[in-house]
Amino acid sequence: MDPTTKINIPESALERVVIVGGGFGGLQLARKLNKANFQVVLIDKNNYHQFQPLFYQVAMSGLEPSSIVFPFRKLFQGRKDLYIRMAEVTHVDTTAKQLQTPLGHCNYDHLIVATGADTNYYGNEELERRTLPMKSVSEALYLRNSILDDYEDALTTPAYDDRQELVDIVIVGGGATGVELAGSLAEMKTHVLPKDYPELAVQEEFDIYLVQSGDALLKGMSANSSEKALRYLEDLGVTVLLNSRVTGFDGRIVTFDDDRTIATQKVIWAAGIKGQPIPGLPEEAITYGNRLAVDRHNRVKGTDCVYAIGDVAYMEEPDFPQGHPQVAQVAIQMGEHLAKNLRYRHERGEEWEPFHYSDKGSMATIGRGRAVVDIPKPEFHFAGVLAWLVWLIVHLFAILGTRNKIFVFLNWLYNYINYNQSLRLIIRPAKAR
Amino acid sequence: MDPTTKINIPESALERVVIVGGGFGGLQLARKLNKANFQVVLIDKNNYHQFQPLFYQVAMSGLEPSSIVFPFRKLFQGRKDLYIRMAEVTHVDTTAKQLQTPLGHCNYDHLIVATGADTNYYGNEELERRTLPMKSVSEALYLRNSILDDYEDALTTPAYDDRQELVDIVIVGGGATGVELAGSLAEMKTHVLPKDYPELAVQEEFDIYLVQSGDALLKGMSANSSEKALRYLEDLGVTVLLNSRVTGFDGRIVTFDDDRTIATQKVIWAAGIKGQPIPGLPEEAITYGNRLAVDRHNRVKGTDCVYAIGDVAYMEEPDFPQGHPQVAQVAIQMGEHLAKNLRYRHERGEEWEPFHYSDKGSMATIGRGRAVVDIPKPEFHFAGVLAWLVWLIVHLFAILGTRNKIFVFLNWLYNYINYNQSLRLIIRPAKAR
Repeated sequence: MDPTTKINIPESALERVVIVGGGFGGLQLARKLNKANFQVVLIDKNNYHQFQPLFYQVAMSGLEPSSIVFPFRKLFQGRKDLYIRMAEVTHVDTTAKQLQTPLGHCNYDHLIVATGADTNYYGNEELERRTLPMKSVSEALYLRNSILDDYEDALTTPAYDDRQELVDIVIVGGGATGVELAGSLAEMKTHVLPKDYPELAVQEEFDIYLVQSGDALLKGMSANSSEKALRYLEDLGVTVLLNSRVTGFDGRIVTFDDDRTIATQKVIWAAGIKGQPIPGLPEEAITYGNRLAVDRHNRVKGTDCVYAIGDVAYMEEPDFPQGHPQVAQVAIQMGEHLAKNLRYRHERGEEWEPFHYSDKGSMATIGRGRAVVDIPKPEFHFAGVLAWLVWLIVHLFAILGTRNKIFVFLNWLYNYINYNQSLRLIIRPAKAR
Repeated sequence: MDPTTKINIPESALERVVIVGGGFGGLQLARKLNKANFQVVLIDKNNYHQFQPLFYQVAMSGLEPSSIVFPFRKLFQGRKDLYIRMAEVTHVDTTAKQLQTPLGHCNYDHLIVATGADTNYYGNEELERRTLPMKSVSEALYLRNSILDDYEDALTTPAYDDRQELVDIVIVGGGATGVELAGSLAEMKTHVLPKDYPELAVQEEFDIYLVQSGDALLKGMSANSSEKALRYLEDLGVTVLLNSRVTGFDGRIVTFDDDRTIATQKVIWAAGIKGQPIPGLPEEAITYGNRLAVDRHNRVKGTDCVYAIGDVAYMEEPDFPQGHPQVAQVAIQMGEHLAKNLRYRHERGEEWEPFHYSDKGSMATIGRGRAVVDIPKPEFHFAGVLAWLVWLIVHLFAILGTRNKIFVFLNWLYNYINYNQSLRLIIRPAKAR
């Protein structure tokens, strides 16, 4: 693409706000700028918003991708002064106030970096090449296909050791993603796989390992919840390895820092994330975890009119001196807050209000019927069936809020409760000829 | 794979029936052999059965692939003496009674060839390379992604002529697939695309061409139904070109035998099918349309214990002196009939009964609210809303019969009636690293 080509967006007398990334933060911001005096441009690699908290359900054949992703064009049907472009932003020139994309360049008056975070392999190229990530619905779908492919292969693998490599799964990372993945895999092992694969000794042969470098699961949640989650997983037959650090994986053997090994062909990497800033932003702004240092107005350090929100932003505030947790709630609140500053205070020349994160609590589910919930103020923890119902209702409303998918959700709920989902499909779009 | 390796299936005292292909015919046969004195092996390239009559809905973002495909393992949960293997059969040796697959070889006592049909390009390699087929759910999904990609590209294509190439679609083949595809594309153009792409002049610029080599659509249906279908499509704004034959497509220009041309980058090829017999079957058995000549017992000419059913089989009977139509009903009836001959008459050494096809009628839908139905005996044709309701009920029961997907279907019905589906997603599994 000739760099002088301009992306095809109508000229307008309005100031142009360009949002890069339509995750929780970017989507919220775009919504809250409805009927504001801005021309809004939303640029994303995909044509859909992804509901990340349920990726693990896609990987475990519990939900279809379409149940948890939502096309931007449908979300914004009828919206004025908003333009959606599907492209990867390759560079930003903050002096010229211009983005580069394969569709051409795009000028902005205000740039919102809402590009989120990607999997962090901490510089280990072997792990990056050989383990399976789960930071997008496409990766979750790839994981689903690869798990099912390996079970099929196991059927025609007579030697016990070779079969073990195919059916055992190692999950690295004991955060919410790893815990929820391990829990739902364990339930699939108990309730679904013996029926699908009566020829295999599923209960005896299929092992699930969850590896955590620290001494507790769900870092960031209460000690209470960490311990409950550990107990629930062990009840479900997951082997939880605490204080264990994976150092290598050659495609068949996982090695640990204390020289232990596990034989498997499938390692899921959920051990960390790193910010994905846009190339071209000032070096001085890049800080811990590859995130962008922002002030309390979400303004990126050393820039003018460039803001970062969500997982890619690093903001210190008195209650969070080491930055906020990288969760959906923070992104949503930042998106909403920045929208208010832009549409009310920017235009009137008023002083902007500083962002303050209001923690509504956190939760994780471990298979069906069990979850852990932490409420911060007043501090309160609970677990078990009630916690699971809370988890279910929160996610139900979050999804319904995005899109009226009541039947899809009812269908999922019905099958989820009955262990009766039939999505164990290895589907790939046909190759181009 | 070492050709001496044997596929891993338990030895059994029972005779082994190997079914290659789990389409309508193969699936029906496998089901009807339940509790028969056979070991049944079902081999398919995929791990799922595909409900072909609704592929066009997947291509048009109306249904998720998972709503119309059904994992074999789930369909056969709890079934004894049945083994499912996901593999492509590459060769058959009818003397040794042995199949070759990438998983190893597999012996059979009775072989059922239910491999169906694939797209027929009549030897035109250019058309094969450049047009889009729709004979599998993967191809339908690829088509969906490619249509949506092109609409996105059209947004950033300022020149009218270049944009035309992206948004115009040529469908070649006026059979049920072509007609249903054109109808649902026309409805998407009217009801969905203007809302998704307000920046584009959808009504003025998006053209849909349906090309038919003969002088009527829906060959094989009544003249009444053909004419109704033509009228319905023209009402919906589809340009139907009868007596027109596509001879070439260079990726940007479609050429016809009378030198007319249409500029487009997207040609969907639904103009014909050809049988897909297994390599190694006797040459003398291959007949019209690359199908396998079979006798009234479905036995393949020149073989012992090899049977063909469904689209790949060519059988003449008094009422059908030029073979049966290649439709689901024939495959299902052949599968059921052959199962009865095998399980009742073969074992007792009784004489087999000849197959007779009982035509229950045929139908096609043209967008929502309109369809055409032919009933053969007593001969009766009807069209319009009532026909559409009949179409809906028949497909509802066919799908529910395969799998209890009532919520999925209700969801689809709701959105179908409300033009409100939100499956316009460009999702591909992540690439392996």
